[in-house]
Amino acid sequence: MPHLHIEYTANLPELNADVALLRLNNTLVASGQFAEADIKSRAVKVEHFRVGTGLGERGFVHVQLALLSGRSPEIKKQLGESLLTVVQDLGPWPAGLSVQFSVEIVDMDRGCYAKAILDS
Amino acid sequence: MPHLHIEYTANLPELNADVALLRLNNTLVASGQFAEADIKSRAVKVEHFRVGTGLGERGFVHVQLALLSGRSPEIKKQLGESLLTVVQDLGPWPAGLSVQFSVEIVDMDRGCYAKAILDS
Amino acid sequence: MPHLHIEYTANLPELNADVALLRLNNTLVASGQFAEADIKSRAVKVEHFRVGTGLGERGFVHVQLALLSGRSPEIKKQLGESLLTVVQDLGPWPAGLSVQFSVEIVDMDRGCYAKAILDS
Repeated sequence: MPHLHIEYTANLPELNADVALLRLNNTLVASGQFAEADIKSRAVKVEHFRVGTGLGERGFVHVQLALLSGRSPEIKKQLGESLLTVVQDLGPWPAGLSVQFSVEIVDMDRGCYAKAILDS
Repeated sequence: MPHLHIEYTANLPELNADVALLRLNNTLVASGQFAEADIKSRAVKVEHFRVGTGLGERGFVHVQLALLSGRSPEIKKQLGESLLTVVQDLGPWPAGLSVQFSVEIVDMDRGCYAKAILDS
Repeated sequence: MPHLHIEYTANLPELNADVALLRLNNTLVASGQFAEADIKSRAVKVEHFRVGTGLGERGFVHVQLALLSGRSPEIKKQLGESLLTVVQDLGPWPAGLSVQFSVEIVDMDRGCYAKAILDS
């Protein structure tokens, strides 16, 4: 905990996934809500996608942040907005393309979350 | 919003991901629940999968539709059934294979969903 | 139902995804909670990931098990712990690497889950 997923469409070639992950994780650390080493993030480039049904080219970047349940709506809203700011700044974005950025916060059921760490 | 994910197993070679996405998005537009340009969909072919533990070959196609919270159970049920109809029609499906089709509707917490659009 | 997703970071080369899926499915069958043929599992190797912000190399294996809503907290907790035990045993794990294992149980809204099976 937390688990972050970032998905970005393949028509956004300037987005550097590794830079994106570092910036997002830095933002989560800076929020003061999480232990640094607990933050587990991954980035996936989406090769097959479609935004709407029209002909115009569109792309998106979507972040899902999954947290153990119990945080206040205010904290979750603030986390979402902080991550959105980072995501918008990951460009440059291609000219002539409509790009949608979104952040979703998901509660994970704390009562049945199971975890172990191996330090070898 | 909405976010649609379709996953299909690699033993369903006739499934055309781009056709699937267009048909699913058309169905979402036709529902009247969403603005056309808001529909963000992606398709992923699952290379490593297992259905159950038996030897018989099986595959699956699973759709997850994530919506901002607040829609009625009836509307969500109707959306699920409409998408399921589309999914079943995405074949032809291989002979001798048991294929499971499923659609899950997920509520996204409206209070902490963050979004921005860049039209460059 | 159920749907299982396992994600593992690309720095865990000894993890065999197909073996992992079979063991996880066996565990789900053994729980007595599911019909064997209903268990739909997939494994994804995560190529782009970051744990925290530090320099030390870290990896993770995360399982998400999605169930139709209605099971008791005790059963869900037990399922999570059983899966965690299996996951920890999927190694050997690389020396000098901190590996985090986690299992999350998600309820899927039973009222709007749609499903069909094709036996051709």
